[in-house]
Amino acid sequence: MALEIERKYLIHHDKWHNFSKPEGQLYRQGYILKDPNKTIRVRLTDTTAYLTIKGASVGATRTEFEYEIPKEEAVELLDNFAVSELSKVRYKIMYMNKLWEVDVFMGDNDGLIVAEIELLSEEESFELPEWISIEVTGDNRYYNSNLSAHPFKNW
Amino acid sequence: MALEIERKYLIHHDKWHNFSKPEGQLYRQGYILKDPNKTIRVRLTDTTAYLTIKGASVGATRTEFEYEIPKEEAVELLDNFAVSELSKVRYKIMYMNKLWEVDVFMGDNDGLIVAEIELLSEEESFELPEWISIEVTGDNRYYNSNLSAHPFKNW
Repeated sequence: MALEIERKYLIHHDKWHNFSKPEGQLYRQGYILKDPNKTIRVRLTDTTAYLTIKGASVGATRTEFEYEIPKEEAVELLDNFAVSELSKVRYKIMYMNKLWEVDVFMGDNDGLIVAEIELLSEEESFELPEWISIEVTGDNRYYNSNLSAHPFKNW
Repeated sequence: MALEIERKYLIHHDKWHNFSKPEGQLYRQGYILKDPNKTIRVRLTDTTAYLTIKGASVGATRTEFEYEIPKEEAVELLDNFAVSELSKVRYKIMYMNKLWEVDVFMGDNDGLIVAEIELLSEEESFELPEWISIEVTGDNRYYNSNLSAHPFKNW
């Protein structure tokens, strides 16, 4: 098990679009199980696939179990077992020695961009890139599991 | 993905007890998700642990995705995420070139013994060992996922 400690932010879209960034990677992810206490997610990219079990969030912290699985099986799991699904392009950006992951959502979540930073403790300090806007850590609406069922376009 | 094709039988207890068999292995297994169309199971033995996703049964056939996971993580998943659980001792017995798996259930399922044979096709022929009694393939009550929530002692 790992403990996932992460903080989540909205983005200044203009600043983000003008920012010089590396190429993003397309993520397709679906949920086999979504309930308030646990989610089971299948994530598929061009190169890898993972099955991930996450517990409930307490503050910015969440238990997480992640297993790499064959890509073909991820496709079958998504096609046959996912109750909801979303797609996004993920950008990985190093800023002041920390990794930021910026998700540009697609489809019914088009127009939503969310940045996350993963931390080693809830107290860890870090600098905010200029394209960071307000914090939304702990706002359930931004959970990917919720976005897959209640997408941004319906808010 | 694998297709799991198996037939399931009850056991003549006296004949089974008198049968000379290899040592069995203790299985602890719990269900993170149980619904009519899919189950997610964590199975832990002395030596290995697996996370398994199964689809709905059609006749004796069922889709199955199985991933080996670290034993310590299986314990955490069982303790934190399983909605129901059971224990059994499994005996693996070769008979006429086929593998039989005989489960002697424990706890609230004490008194129940079930034998399974895994097949390559639904039409595959095989011989029945002398300790086999009536067939219960397709009887939902004998699904391990159901036995974990509706144990034999309450039938």
